[in-house]
Amino acid sequence: MTSDQPTPTLQDVATAAGVSTATVSRCLNFPDQVTKRTRAKVMQAVNALSYSPNFGARAMASRRTNTIGAIIPTMENAVFARGLQAFQDELHSYGFTMLVASTSYRADIEEEQIRALVGRGADALLLIGHERSPNTYRFLETQNVPTLITWAFDTSLTRPSIGFDNRKAMRDMALKVIELGHRNLAFISARTTLNDRAKARQSGIEDAMAISELRASDLHMVETVYGIEQGATAFEQVMKAASQTTAVFCGNDVLAVGALRRAREMGVRVPEDVSVIGFDDIELAEVAYPALTTVHVPHREMGWRAGKALAELVTNGTPIEAIELDANPVFRGTLAPAKG
Amino acid sequence: MTSDQPTPTLQDVATAAGVSTATVSRCLNFPDQVTKRTRAKVMQAVNALSYSPNFGARAMASRRTNTIGAIIPTMENAVFARGLQAFQDELHSYGFTMLVASTSYRADIEEEQIRALVGRGADALLLIGHERSPNTYRFLETQNVPTLITWAFDTSLTRPSIGFDNRKAMRDMALKVIELGHRNLAFISARTTLNDRAKARQSGIEDAMAISELRASDLHMVETVYGIEQGATAFEQVMKAASQTTAVFCGNDVLAVGALRRAREMGVRVPEDVSVIGFDDIELAEVAYPALTTVHVPHREMGWRAGKALAELVTNGTPIEAIELDANPVFRGTLAPAKG
Repeated sequence: MTSDQPTPTLQDVATAAGVSTATVSRCLNFPDQVTKRTRAKVMQAVNALSYSPNFGARAMASRRTNTIGAIIPTMENAVFARGLQAFQDELHSYGFTMLVASTSYRADIEEEQIRALVGRGADALLLIGHERSPNTYRFLETQNVPTLITWAFDTSLTRPSIGFDNRKAMRDMALKVIELGHRNLAFISARTTLNDRAKARQSGIEDAMAISELRASDLHMVETVYGIEQGATAFEQVMKAASQTTAVFCGNDVLAVGALRRAREMGVRVPEDVSVIGFDDIELAEVAYPALTTVHVPHREMGWRAGKALAELVTNGTPIEAIELDANPVFRGTLAPAKG
Repeated sequence: MTSDQPTPTLQDVATAAGVSTATVSRCLNFPDQVTKRTRAKVMQAVNALSYSPNFGARAMASRRTNTIGAIIPTMENAVFARGLQAFQDELHSYGFTMLVASTSYRADIEEEQIRALVGRGADALLLIGHERSPNTYRFLETQNVPTLITWAFDTSLTRPSIGFDNRKAMRDMALKVIELGHRNLAFISARTTLNDRAKARQSGIEDAMAISELRASDLHMVETVYGIEQGATAFEQVMKAASQTTAVFCGNDVLAVGALRRAREMGVRVPEDVSVIGFDDIELAEVAYPALTTVHVPHREMGWRAGKALAELVTNGTPIEAIELDANPVFRGTLAPAKG
C-alpha cells in the first residue's frame, strides 16, 4: 500500500467481505462467535486491504468513553463486592472508570441496565453468568459492545468467560461431605430460574450423589431468595420436612449464615447434629460462629483478570482468552462427620 | 401572555435576570445556594415572563437520560449496599436506572467518577458526605447537575442532604457507654482526612466525654483503613498501648468485627473484659458472635427518601427538601458495665 492511499477502515473491510461492520468486529474480537466461512471471508478482506485491527482500535479511540459497565445481580451482602473492587482497581490502572448496575436478580431489569449502559457509551460490559434472553444477546451484538461473562465457566458455550465451574466446585465439596458419612442431604438454593450458577450448584451435588451411589432425587431442595432471614426460614423448613437431614448445603454464604442462626435458635447443634455448608467464601463466612465451611470463590483473581482482559481488548484489540479458575472447598467449623 | 408568544425558555429568564442559565436553574432547584439578591432578580424575571419551572423541566425532558449516578466510597463489606438497593428500587419505580461508581475512599477517583457520570449524561448524582474539593463542587454547578448528599446531615451546610447526624448519633452511644462506668475509652477510626463522617463520629465521642467531665484528649485514637483485618490489628495495638481500656468504639461494624475476632484470639473476653461498639448496623453486626452493639443507620429509609427526592426533582422540578433521619444505638451482646 503506497502512502497516498487512505488507511483502510472497518467499513472498507466489511464492504470487501460483504458483511456488516459488526461482523468484522466480532470476527476480530470474538472469532469463536462467527462461522468458519465468515471468518475466512473477513480475514481475506483484512489481508487484501492490509487492515490493521490494532490501528482500527486506535482509530476508534476517539469514540471511546473509557467507561466499562458491570452488571451484577445484587449489591447486598457483598457477594460480588470483592471481585468488583479488584475489577475496578485493574481497570483504573488502564485509565478506565467502572460503572455498576444491579438487577435484583431480575432479567427485565438487567436488560434495561444493559441498554442504559450501552446508551451511555460503555466501551464494554462485564456480566454475571451466561443465562439471559436471546434478545439481550442480539442487542449486544448489534451494538457491537464487547461482553465478558464471569462467575461462571462452561466449555459448552462459546461466549468468552473468565470464571469458575460452579458445578464442579460444588461436586468436589459434596464428595467430601458424603465421604464424612452424610447420606441425608438438603440444599437451600436461590431460585434456579434464570440463575445458571444456582442450577449448576444443584447439579454438582447431584453429580456427587450419583458418583457415591446415592439417589440424586433424594436431595431435599428448598428454593428461596438470597438473604439471611430467608436462609433461617428455609433451614427450619428443611428440619421440619426432612428431620433426618445431617448436612445442609446452601446456595451461598448468606443463606448459610441464616441457617446457622436459626439452628442456634432451634437448639440444633452445628456441626454435631447437622453440618452446614456455604458457597462464596465472602467475609461473612469467617465472621460467622462457628466459621463456615464453604467453597472459596477466587473473587479477586477473577476480578482483576476480567478487568485486564476487557481493558486490553478495548485498548489494544487483544482478543479475550477464556480462563477457568479454581474454586475449592475451605473446611472450617461447620462440617463434621455424620452422627451415628 | 397570548398564545402566539413563544413559551419562555430558561435562557430567556437568564437573559432577563442578567445571570447564567446555571444560576437560574440553581435558584429554582437549590434556592439556598444563591444569594437573596440573585434569587430576587431571578424570581422577578420568572414572574415577568410567566416562566414555568415545571414546564421547563418537561421541556428539558428530551435531553434526559433517566440515569442517576451514585458514587460511594466502597462496595466492600456492604456498608452502603442496603441503602443503595432501596435508592435503586425507588428510582426504578420512577423509571430511572441507577449507575454506581466506587472511589476506594479516594478524592481523586471520586472526581474522575463524577466527571465520567456527568459525561455519560447522568440526570443527577447522589454523593456520600459533604467533604470534597471546591473544584468538584464548581464542576457540578457549571454542569448544572443536581446533587444530593447522603449519609450525613449538617445544618451548618446549605447543600441539601438526606441523612443523619453522625456526631450526634455517636455522642448518644458514647453517653450510654460512659453511663455504664467506662472511663478509659479508645476509638478505632477510619482515616479522618476527607471523611467527614469519620471526623464527626470522633467529635461525637469527645462531646460525650466533655459532657461527662472526662478529658476528650484522653480518648485513645487509632486510625486505619476500613477492613476486618485492619480492625483486628488496631484492636491489638489499642490493648498494647492502652491496656487499661475498657470500651473500644469502632468507626464501623467491619472494624468492630475484626476487633472481636482479635479479642477472641488474644483471650480478651467481650464484653466481660472489654466492650466493643460498632457503627452502621449492617448484617455483619447481627451475624457476629457476640452480636454487636452498634449505631443503627437508617439505610433503607435514607435510600428510598434520597431516590424519591432526586426522581421528583428531575421529573417534576420539585426542590429537594433536606431531611434529618435518626440513627440510634442498638444494644446487643458486646457492651456491658465496666469491670471493677
